[in-house]
Amino acid sequence: MKRTIFFLADHTGITVEAMGRSLLSQFEGFDYETVHWPFIDSLEKARRVAERINQTTIESEQKPIVFTTLVDPRIRDYFKDLDVPVMDFFESFTSRLEEELKLPSSHALGRYHTTDNSRAYDQRIHAVNFALHNDDGAITKNYPAADLILIGVSRSGKTPTCLFLGLQHSVLAANYPLTDDDLHNDLLPKTLHVYRDKLYGLTIDPLQLQRIRQERRPDRRYSSLEQCKMEIKLAEELFKHYNIPYLDTTSMSIEEISARLLQHINRAAKVPVNSQ
Amino acid sequence: MKRTIFFLADHTGITVEAMGRSLLSQFEGFDYETVHWPFIDSLEKARRVAERINQTTIESEQKPIVFTTLVDPRIRDYFKDLDVPVMDFFESFTSRLEEELKLPSSHALGRYHTTDNSRAYDQRIHAVNFALHNDDGAITKNYPAADLILIGVSRSGKTPTCLFLGLQHSVLAANYPLTDDDLHNDLLPKTLHVYRDKLYGLTIDPLQLQRIRQERRPDRRYSSLEQCKMEIKLAEELFKHYNIPYLDTTSMSIEEISARLLQHINRAAKVPVNSQ
Repeated sequence: MKRTIFFLADHTGITVEAMGRSLLSQFEGFDYETVHWPFIDSLEKARRVAERINQTTIESEQKPIVFTTLVDPRIRDYFKDLDVPVMDFFESFTSRLEEELKLPSSHALGRYHTTDNSRAYDQRIHAVNFALHNDDGAITKNYPAADLILIGVSRSGKTPTCLFLGLQHSVLAANYPLTDDDLHNDLLPKTLHVYRDKLYGLTIDPLQLQRIRQERRPDRRYSSLEQCKMEIKLAEELFKHYNIPYLDTTSMSIEEISARLLQHINRAAKVPVNSQ
Repeated sequence: MKRTIFFLADHTGITVEAMGRSLLSQFEGFDYETVHWPFIDSLEKARRVAERINQTTIESEQKPIVFTTLVDPRIRDYFKDLDVPVMDFFESFTSRLEEELKLPSSHALGRYHTTDNSRAYDQRIHAVNFALHNDDGAITKNYPAADLILIGVSRSGKTPTCLFLGLQHSVLAANYPLTDDDLHNDLLPKTLHVYRDKLYGLTIDPLQLQRIRQERRPDRRYSSLEQCKMEIKLAEELFKHYNIPYLDTTSMSIEEISARLLQHINRAAKVPVNSQ
């Protein structure tokens, strides 16, 4: 029977889930199911959640484990009185930070993941739209504004990476697909020459590329292993010839690719690995 | 002078940043700059980071604060020996979880934010592509597969929300923009009728809508306050008339909108607020 994990938060619950899953991923062979309960911002809501937790304990004959990022001490204490293990992320760190910063914490709910800093938020939305509008190489007039231009063959991971970089990090990322024509010319497409410093290549194992393309458009030349091998070979040759840095995305998640690219941008700009 | 905050991780650093910023948002009037250092997976790298931390202490005459999600105890201990406050998220919780689960933790690096669970990862990428391909109401043939169809006037927040729901939560979210024609007919577009249960409306304050549209296409009817007011009025009437649940996104971030929508989907499906 799977153990039940509760993620409780007074706001979106994104942080508590990230932290909880990250910790639990350290335990192999441990199977669990999760209950997410965001927006717990009153004692009345806390009471309903507590009932559910107690009910789970009875039904599953195993105590659930509770992760929380609750800020309001009254709500937080409410869960501490239950007979289940509570991993409270804010409790210990908040008092240590108060001491260190010599400031009281505001105990205000949901300060993170809001639009409070509206300029920063607008930049994120702008970056998402930038990724959407500069996605397929058809429009290149916005490249002067780009922080990064990803190049690679179709389905090497460019689009989701650009969207993630925009959504999470306000990075203006465009992408330019290398077509058959580009690759056979063995030349960097002309429009890209002036933007050499912004280019970053993505490559991928031909077998995986074939699997991805096969799902999208089965049984065409586009999704044949031969074609995938050829495109990847030519793309990597192009990267090497023009000294364009590149990354093999075969076993990398969007988060991993993005973290590497953020490091690269910072390094290229000769500033420390610093995002703010 | 801004205090320097270090975010140290052995992998992408996403979790440590979320947790750190979330804690720091509790302190008003505290100004800081951040240094992100992901992929610290060797003692040699740890040594370089430590040098940088020490250098910051000297240069800024204020001790930096270090947040970490380091898994390897040797690397973790390395930072503990420095004369700076270290907020170590894994340390206390890992041992408590080991006790609770009666399992040893694997101390393996970067278990979260990987493609290890490739089926789940493929679903996320599929969901991003779904959001991209079902973004403007032009294609409706995929609606039977959708978990959610967002409707609303142009620039009410539909697209970034669908992308976020796909990227972060593997939700298949389509969106259908309500056009002038739809709104003046005062009728729900025909194609949407069969999908009534999947519809969710987004609305926004007309003044904010006008500001957003003005940036996109200045000085047109599209971006006039009169037009924005009229569209929002008609859209809200439509939502009410057809009993479509809706949300005012005026002061909500994508994360906040998405958290509400996730709650709605779960409730609609009559299962507990459960994501797994």
